[in-house]
Amino acid sequence: MISKKQFEEIKEKVLGYLAQANIAVTKEEIDLIEVADFGLNDIYNNGLQLLEYVNTSRVCAKELVMLPGQTCPEHRHPPFGDYRGKEETFRCRYGKVHLFVEGEATTHPQAQPPEKGKKYFTVQHEIILHPGDQYTIPVDTLHWFKAGENGAVITEFSTTSYDDYDIFTNPEIKRIPVVE
Amino acid sequence: MISKKQFEEIKEKVLGYLAQANIAVTKEEIDLIEVADFGLNDIYNNGLQLLEYVNTSRVCAKELVMLPGQTCPEHRHPPFGDYRGKEETFRCRYGKVHLFVEGEATTHPQAQPPEKGKKYFTVQHEIILHPGDQYTIPVDTLHWFKAGENGAVITEFSTTSYDDYDIFTNPEIKRIPVVE
Ligand SMILES: [Zn+2]
Ligand SMILES: [Zn+2]
Repeated sequence: MISKKQFEEIKEKVLGYLAQANIAVTKEEIDLIEVADFGLNDIYNNGLQLLEYVNTSRVCAKELVMLPGQTCPEHRHPPFGDYRGKEETFRCRYGKVHLFVEGEATTHPQAQPPEKGKKYFTVQHEIILHPGDQYTIPVDTLHWFKAGENGAVITEFSTTSYDDYDIFTNPEIKRIPVVE
Repeated sequence: MISKKQFEEIKEKVLGYLAQANIAVTKEEIDLIEVADFGLNDIYNNGLQLLEYVNTSRVCAKELVMLPGQTCPEHRHPPFGDYRGKEETFRCRYGKVHLFVEGEATTHPQAQPPEKGKKYFTVQHEIILHPGDQYTIPVDTLHWFKAGENGAVITEFSTTSYDDYDIFTNPEIKRIPVVE
């Protein structure tokens, strides 16, 4: 749960990061900014802000904005029905991103998961993205990501988003945010 | 046909526009920048520069960079085989874009097609995109677009690109560029 006050506070910060990254958004889009705390009440550590540009039956694009050291919890995008599952490419626009995916554990990772829900961060292969770097996450592959100390802005290019179908490793997570 | 010298000259300009839009690209990506003159030998009027970020079997994303007043000639993306055709969303990041699509002709359009091949610009419904504005072009819909006087940078979010299958209204056009 996020309070209305906290939501507005974080939205202001998001607009600051977008401005710093020189990413223009319309007035209408400001109202669409989503603050996701994943139901963990730990937004500055476990959280993510999103602005969905487009999400048709075929293509989705978003701007992801992260506060310093903020982490998006581990999850995967499984296939379901006729849908092959979401394939996503992260392109770092600003700041630094520590992306962790399935694969050989990095011996000395530069980033650590947050304390809350720590045991639910299981994949340990670290990929570091600076502005201009990108990485494509295949369907149904576990991943989590953390912003560096100056925050991060990431453009996500993907197939259609069906957030309800995302599977988080932490069973306490609720993807759809509650603002009170 | 574009000479090697002209290609390098335009690439320098492209890097300037990307810097102005604060869009970071890697060294490797600089080598991937495409300068398309569509075989018309009129690059400053009929032309487009592209940097393809990703083009999987499902999703494509590109940065389109346009010089002042430069126009991408009219075309459409038809379905073929099992492919439903390319759906593209243009999001203006920098400058101004005059996008023309099928629909009611705009009475006093703010932009005109270039002289060369003028008769092959047939759709006249004008949409103006400033930074933060975007527009989704449905499959198989004719469109052309022209940059404003300060050039333009556009992020394109789309389904897979198969440039060979694009259909240009001007029969003289060759989509795949020749650099000599
Ligand atoms: Zn994901
Ligand atoms: Zn097109």
